Amino acid sequence: MIDHTHNPAALSWVASANEEGSEFPLQNLPYGLFRRAGSNENARVGIAIGDQILDTKIAAAAGKWSSAVSVLLQPLADGDLNAFMAQPAAQRRLLRHALFEALSAGSPQEAALRAALLPQAQAQMAVPCRIGDYTDFYTGIHHATTVGKLFRPDNPLLPNYKWVPIGYHGRSSSIGVSGGTVRRPLGQLKSPDAEVPGFSACKRLDYELELGAFVAAGNALGEPIPMAQADEHLFGLTLLNDWSARDVQAWEYQPLGPFLAKNFGSTISPWIVSMEALEPFRIAFEHPASDPQPLPYLDSAKNRAEGGYDIELEVWLQTESMRAKGEPATRLMRSNFRHAYWTLAQMLTHHASNGCNLQPGDLLGTGTLSGPDAAEGGSLLELSMGGKQDLRLPNGETRKFLQDGDTVILRGYAQREGARRIGFGDCSATIVAAPALS
Amino acid sequence: MIDHTHNPAALSWVASANEEGSEFPLQNLPYGLFRRAGSNENARVGIAIGDQILDTKIAAAAGKWSSAVSVLLQPLADGDLNAFMAQPAAQRRLLRHALFEALSAGSPQEAALRAALLPQAQAQMAVPCRIGDYTDFYTGIHHATTVGKLFRPDNPLLPNYKWVPIGYHGRSSSIGVSGGTVRRPLGQLKSPDAEVPGFSACKRLDYELELGAFVAAGNALGEPIPMAQADEHLFGLTLLNDWSARDVQAWEYQPLGPFLAKNFGSTISPWIVSMEALEPFRIAFEHPASDPQPLPYLDSAKNRAEGGYDIELEVWLQTESMRAKGEPATRLMRSNFRHAYWTLAQMLTHHASNGCNLQPGDLLGTGTLSGPDAAEGGSLLELSMGGKQDLRLPNGETRKFLQDGDTVILRGYAQREGARRIGFGDCSATIVAAPALS
Repeated sequence: MIDHTHNPAALSWVASANEEGSEFPLQNLPYGLFRRAGSNENARVGIAIGDQILDTKIAAAAGKWSSAVSVLLQPLADGDLNAFMAQPAAQRRLLRHALFEALSAGSPQEAALRAALLPQAQAQMAVPCRIGDYTDFYTGIHHATTVGKLFRPDNPLLPNYKWVPIGYHGRSSSIGVSGGTVRRPLGQLKSPDAEVPGFSACKRLDYELELGAFVAAGNALGEPIPMAQADEHLFGLTLLNDWSARDVQAWEYQPLGPFLAKNFGSTISPWIVSMEALEPFRIAFEHPASDPQPLPYLDSAKNRAEGGYDIELEVWLQTESMRAKGEPATRLMRSNFRHAYWTLAQMLTHHASNGCNLQPGDLLGTGTLSGPDAAEGGSLLELSMGGKQDLRLPNGETRKFLQDGDTVILRGYAQREGARRIGFGDCSATIVAAPALS
Repeated sequence: MIDHTHNPAALSWVASANEEGSEFPLQNLPYGLFRRAGSNENARVGIAIGDQILDTKIAAAAGKWSSAVSVLLQPLADGDLNAFMAQPAAQRRLLRHALFEALSAGSPQEAALRAALLPQAQAQMAVPCRIGDYTDFYTGIHHATTVGKLFRPDNPLLPNYKWVPIGYHGRSSSIGVSGGTVRRPLGQLKSPDAEVPGFSACKRLDYELELGAFVAAGNALGEPIPMAQADEHLFGLTLLNDWSARDVQAWEYQPLGPFLAKNFGSTISPWIVSMEALEPFRIAFEHPASDPQPLPYLDSAKNRAEGGYDIELEVWLQTESMRAKGEPATRLMRSNFRHAYWTLAQMLTHHASNGCNLQPGDLLGTGTLSGPDAAEGGSLLELSMGGKQDLRLPNGETRKFLQDGDTVILRGYAQREGARRIGFGDCSATIVAAPALS
């Protein structure tokens, strides 16, 4: 639903939010968990606005809020985003509207709320909520096709792909927030020509460009969520890097799927951009007429009319040598979420279709969001054609897979004529060396 | 380590614990989470003893305990088993010893602790701890072979099976405790001869007989757990029923593994039997000389000497008609955990070998624990030979897969000469009809 909070002309009294390239204008208002850097204070939820964070703990006390809004702010001030995620969509919209008023240019709240701002540069971000279960889907059909071709040149997509939103359960304990490191994993590796496997540091370490959708209110065990209600159960999106050890994956994944190839770490961007903020970027979504149409339980007129989201996605790389020389990161690719084969609503409804109970704060990864062109691969596996071809960087370095010291940065934004650009903030992490073999 | 708490002659002042067939003698002392049935009180941890539960909340206040033991009892009284699971093994042993003394015949604590007993029949049990992540392994080689034969008659075991303790991540939100119901899932089904899939109630609903191991203290992200330390990180075992929708599984599982075929529900027995209680039942564990020997990171002298556990396992079935006529459940099969291809220590060390961080309360399923004989299959898929052959029940009913109203009961116990028999308590749940198709 488009309303006055999407008006591109609306300005904030936080000047940096009004700057042309700001990722966090007044129209965005994403949620994150933070404490002041270097402090031991309890983390609380903040709202990104320009280059600042509105501290809900201070704002709840200092601002003037209706009693209904105060009730919604309380769990945020206590650092419990899950409690807010569990609220009905109308309540979530109520808080968005209250924050929008309070941060709008000319708001009588400005004087009281100035003291609730902290520069983002002075904040230490954390994983924004308790992620009970993490599920990763496989909706990037161009990724699935390219990767499938490496194994089955004549038949890259399996017969179920265009019927089933394929997904699997991932590891929630090892999900970290942007800005940290990821340790290269040890693992069992077996090259195709070796007689027996060995155990050593992963040699084919990769990233995967994904979006992560957070679940809002959940469903009771045994009670599916129909398509008509799916949007109500979606809270917002982050960028998600699903780090992958390709050599571990190739040896371990039959017959039960990826395990140690993935669960050594996943990285998300710190700010959850709400579904409300993304309303202006909804787009029509239909499978080509030559493809099977979704089974009725995955179909709805609303999904066809506006189930998709137009979100630009990019992967950037800064090697250790670039960092040492003060050279900026280089962009490896661009893609867009519109290329996914299934919508967020379809993923969520499929997930709950067997009665599986989703809970507030659960994370649903989209799978690698590659574009249709070879240069739009969302992983090095794709860009290096399965490790067969070097990717040449502007500074002359080459990569087939990641090296220690490489920083991978995912970026995303939504923009169109007549709307303010909505950013996601960086999703970044740096590879560090594997532990010594004991 | 065998000590006086394993002395089979030791008796309790709780008379029912001394009865020949008791699952919960003084030597067991398993942990569970309970409240009085019908009450809204906060759940707390209890210790099963005979047909009673020692309520740690009352016992902490009424008993006489050293200050070290009091500190350990406090989180249990607060219902937080995870905090206790995180303690070092020496602390966990300290509490076992204190409980053993306090419940021993002749203990001066008897008078004070009698008031802390609640009959198990008056308790409502809950999932005993917060399960952050649930991982299911595939260590039942006879299960893997039988199921593999259904798909690949000439090559049932994949090349990685005898090298990699195969596992995948499962769903933690839908794990329930014994005594409840499991709703038959809806799902996408496609019979091999159908052109396109449909969406309907699962027709091939099955159970899987497993053990579940709970993680004690965890490891930091990026820091593997060597085999030498694996035992320290294991807290205890329950029975685990990994309900499976075989028709959903067949259509969805390529290439990323089981998803909706499994995550509609898993059931565990309410009592976590501690690794300390199972010490007398450790057994030597080696792969046949004709098989590959474990890679060094999965090998240790201790694992070879005593990595296995001799635990008898059974599946019982009571159909709706049997229940209506007052007929008891019938035993479908027997097996033993000794037939697993990998030990608990190997599963845990493999899981953390890439730096994946395990946390207190995480659940590691063993996979289906079938025995070597066809009659020892741990699932109906095996006993009905892939649904091709009816299983005839003593009352004349037949089953290929589960019907609505069927109650499946897993049972387990450890026994040998010179030790008290240690039981697990039933792991039971009843199938209820699928939701209506909308």
